[in-house]
Amino acid sequence: MQGMELDDLDTPTALIDAAQMDRNIARMQARMTALGVRLRPHVKTSKCLAVARRQRDAGAQGITVSTLKEAAQFFDDGFDDILYAVGIAAAKLPQVRALRERGCRLAIVVDSLAAAQAVVADGHRHAVMIEIDSDGHRAGVKPEEDRLIAIGRTLHDGGVVLQGVMTHAGASYELDTPEALQAMAEQERSRCVRAAERLRAAGLPCPEVSVGSTPTALSARHLEGVTEVRAGVYVFNDLVMANIGVCALHEIALSVLATVIGHQPDKGWALTDAGWMAMSRDRGTEAQAVDHGYGAVCDTRGVPIPGFIVSGANQEHGIVTLRGDAPCADIEQQLPLGMRLRILPNHACATAAQFPAYAVLGTAGRITATWERFYGW
Amino acid sequence: MQGMELDDLDTPTALIDAAQMDRNIARMQARMTALGVRLRPHVKTSKCLAVARRQRDAGAQGITVSTLKEAAQFFDDGFDDILYAVGIAAAKLPQVRALRERGCRLAIVVDSLAAAQAVVADGHRHAVMIEIDSDGHRAGVKPEEDRLIAIGRTLHDGGVVLQGVMTHAGASYELDTPEALQAMAEQERSRCVRAAERLRAAGLPCPEVSVGSTPTALSARHLEGVTEVRAGVYVFNDLVMANIGVCALHEIALSVLATVIGHQPDKGWALTDAGWMAMSRDRGTEAQAVDHGYGAVCDTRGVPIPGFIVSGANQEHGIVTLRGDAPCADIEQQLPLGMRLRILPNHACATAAQFPAYAVLGTAGRITATWERFYGW
Repeated sequence: MQGMELDDLDTPTALIDAAQMDRNIARMQARMTALGVRLRPHVKTSKCLAVARRQRDAGAQGITVSTLKEAAQFFDDGFDDILYAVGIAAAKLPQVRALRERGCRLAIVVDSLAAAQAVVADGHRHAVMIEIDSDGHRAGVKPEEDRLIAIGRTLHDGGVVLQGVMTHAGASYELDTPEALQAMAEQERSRCVRAAERLRAAGLPCPEVSVGSTPTALSARHLEGVTEVRAGVYVFNDLVMANIGVCALHEIALSVLATVIGHQPDKGWALTDAGWMAMSRDRGTEAQAVDHGYGAVCDTRGVPIPGFIVSGANQEHGIVTLRGDAPCADIEQQLPLGMRLRILPNHACATAAQFPAYAVLGTAGRITATWERFYGW
Repeated sequence: MQGMELDDLDTPTALIDAAQMDRNIARMQARMTALGVRLRPHVKTSKCLAVARRQRDAGAQGITVSTLKEAAQFFDDGFDDILYAVGIAAAKLPQVRALRERGCRLAIVVDSLAAAQAVVADGHRHAVMIEIDSDGHRAGVKPEEDRLIAIGRTLHDGGVVLQGVMTHAGASYELDTPEALQAMAEQERSRCVRAAERLRAAGLPCPEVSVGSTPTALSARHLEGVTEVRAGVYVFNDLVMANIGVCALHEIALSVLATVIGHQPDKGWALTDAGWMAMSRDRGTEAQAVDHGYGAVCDTRGVPIPGFIVSGANQEHGIVTLRGDAPCADIEQQLPLGMRLRILPNHACATAAQFPAYAVLGTAGRITATWERFYGW
């Protein structure tokens, strides 16, 4: 695709605006440096070596992964400090061990006594983080629970490296004011730090305190007691982040290039070749202040075309309409057959996952590179 | 994976119950044969050569595809009678032409005068179907519209092969009684046949009349005037099809094998390693009679565990709870850490798309093969 213009690309194609992505990376890195913490980006968003290398070049230390396939792929590319941030299943320990025996500093996560016992029983000197529940959103041990200490002691006495505590305030995705986000960031920080203090007070080691989500990372006023922050989607941003209030629409670096393939003039519909297979089925903006359907419609420069969203989607058909009930009266003129559009995604992690590669868009409006991404487990 | 048992597989993994898939294929083929029409399966569901070969071996004639990548991949495997069932964009005509010049009988679809003119302008003797709107659901020309004849004449006089008319009654997905489905099947049939009759009355050729969706195909009482039926998801079936009423839960041949990785006992939650990246974000059962969340939970034999669904999902975490508000009081005992589950998908096309391959489960409970699938465009 290198050297091609947007009008010449096959569609649908996932586009990365490289300059905007670099600005997103620089912004988060600068904020983490200012707060005095390391940044360990979550590479589940891009699953792309070229993207993670840019994050590392900007100052990131280590990466976070959501699958062991990511761990293996990134380790083969030279990333050797990796946190697998999903509670470990005993059946996955042989894979973890194999990577560690090859030199990968791969840490794993537990949040129960049973899981801690399974890790100890594996007999390898694993590096383990205890997951803390800071928002009632998903997994983790609450900081005041008795079992926190029992889990820590089981790990430490069992001969594995108790590396620290980690949490993810996924509930931040439900907020949309600076005050609420700052409060959630402080809750995430303080509860994770509290868990670390309890472990230390019990005589257990807890060097690392790892927190993070893009909304809380960009909203935290201070991160006292925290050693590292994990965040993923900031690298691209998306419509959900814009609704939360942590980025503007023009700061979204990922879009899907689509072609208008037809119309239903009576209904004010334009049909495109970017359906849910391209956009993903993610409807993350549905419950937010501005519902963008399956995506917000921009021209090929990436400038929003006011009012147009992908209001419906079939597998390979997107239905573009004006937001609201009033149909566009001259849809065939406004979005003519063959016109190229760029669709901003609700959720960059989900949309990116639908594509085997990204076309990298340079400032001159031409494709400067193709970056592969991987998928599966 | 060949020879492995379910407890030994990495998770998440997409499983095909091969015997059930074969029964699904046989059922649809027998029905189409009884109705006197050809079956042209939509291979967008599986994107898998091994699956499509079984459909062909059972009597299918030709295939339907949703992307030109599918067309190329299946043609390379010997499938040479292909309908690309998404309205053609002029920019894709060179790819279509290249496949046809290699001997692929690849037909394309238009639903506007502008698209017909673009196909004619390409100068190749393309084979073209006119898409008919039989249900107001997506693309297509209504059978009584004047432009139907104008499009047909433009194509025919322009030197391309006017192969016929095609429609897809996607609105059938919103129904759930045999009476409503029969009525929709008859509407799909009669409107598409009417369009063919109008073209013929205008002196234009229209040899093929192609209709189909899994719900209407399985509900039609007769298909007079129809030459072929396209259907896709029947090969696997899914929870949406079960809610519509065209299959039972035990007739769903696709499931996702997952592992329990943790619990929140207070809330009655079990966490698994099959989040939305594995299940897809499809919530197709949300508006149906039985909302299965992100999937219905079965044991490793594929038998539903009563009441349990994937009620929430993060990227790599599934949250399994009892349906409704009452939390399971002994979730750690009922779904213990490390337990393997099989999750039935809302929408097989979307869930299958998340996986690079299928593990094929034989009747003895062992994996008999790995079948690759492709993705992207």
